[in-house]
Amino acid sequence: MLEDKNKKRKIGNIPYIYPIPMALVGANVHGKPNFELVGDLGLMGIKPALVYISSGNTHYTNVGILENNTFSINFPRTDMLALAEHCGTVSGRDEDKSGLFEVFYGELQTAPLIQECPVNLECKVMKEFSIQHRQIFVAEVVQTYVDDSLVEEKNGNLIFAELAKFDPIIYTLGDRYYRIGKSISVGNNRKRRKTRS
Amino acid sequence: MLEDKNKKRKIGNIPYIYPIPMALVGANVHGKPNFELVGDLGLMGIKPALVYISSGNTHYTNVGILENNTFSINFPRTDMLALAEHCGTVSGRDEDKSGLFEVFYGELQTAPLIQECPVNLECKVMKEFSIQHRQIFVAEVVQTYVDDSLVEEKNGNLIFAELAKFDPIIYTLGDRYYRIGKSISVGNNRKRRKTRS
Repeated sequence: MLEDKNKKRKIGNIPYIYPIPMALVGANVHGKPNFELVGDLGLMGIKPALVYISSGNTHYTNVGILENNTFSINFPRTDMLALAEHCGTVSGRDEDKSGLFEVFYGELQTAPLIQECPVNLECKVMKEFSIQHRQIFVAEVVQTYVDDSLVEEKNGNLIFAELAKFDPIIYTLGDRYYRIGKSISVGNNRKRRKTRS
Repeated sequence: MLEDKNKKRKIGNIPYIYPIPMALVGANVHGKPNFELVGDLGLMGIKPALVYISSGNTHYTNVGILENNTFSINFPRTDMLALAEHCGTVSGRDEDKSGLFEVFYGELQTAPLIQECPVNLECKVMKEFSIQHRQIFVAEVVQTYVDDSLVEEKNGNLIFAELAKFDPIIYTLGDRYYRIGKSISVGNNRKRRKTRS
């Protein structure tokens, strides 16, 4: 019986990395903000702050990233899903998406940030490479913006609200979206980062 | 009032990419399976299947990845959190972690896969580079294994169970873990992948 319970099925070369946060990546293309919906992004390091995005090499957003060497990562709430999907369905070559959101700029001045998204990262490209039909942009985060209602400072430490209040859009393969669930209480995971495992 | 609601707070260069799935990355170091807990991993492409992991350049696991040019990504369930954290706290240099899990091998023969994890990816390194103190391994997925109870085939398509049944460990900054929440019904997001946004 135990054998059956743990029986594995080969499903082929499917990159079942799950679940992933969906983000709107912003770049100024020829001076105008453009946004694309991206799931292929993530962390490469916390200190220093290192992130990446992977974008098909024909994508319009890439033009702007290469132009300015900057981009933004903006996390929409689940109630922005339809608009986020629109950004992923229509190319900036065919539609001006600059008016879809209230845009603000930060320290880099060329990375368009979305006011309506609770979290925004301003990113400066450190390395770019192509692999297969993808263009990978590895970037340092120069500044991060969070809705004031979702973070507070206590004794010099930042305390973030529960993720359910951010209400991020979570994606998994099979074209399904999820909300975040409940938090899990844990032990001493603070030690984790110090390891050389 | 609206202005207050959307007021942003600068929190510095914090890579607030959230939420992220936690995985156990496996590699054979000098012929013995070793596992490290990693949050800095993700998708770079779906077709072809492209993923990456980022690992501190002193990590023991890296030795094995460079030795064989292969590694595995294994997603533990939330009930494996204590064991997963243990893998992230103790280095393979100090403790033999090969007996912590039931290990199996697939097509690459050198990437140790964890039987107890519901999803396992066998990865072959395509590109490696160093940036800051991180070593980045970009890899193709050659085979993916899913617990038989979590996937079925219908008319030639793979149908995956709800993510709650996989019960992955989700991490966010501030050392907090979460469970996956409810699924969100959506429109025609299938179009999304065809765009050049």
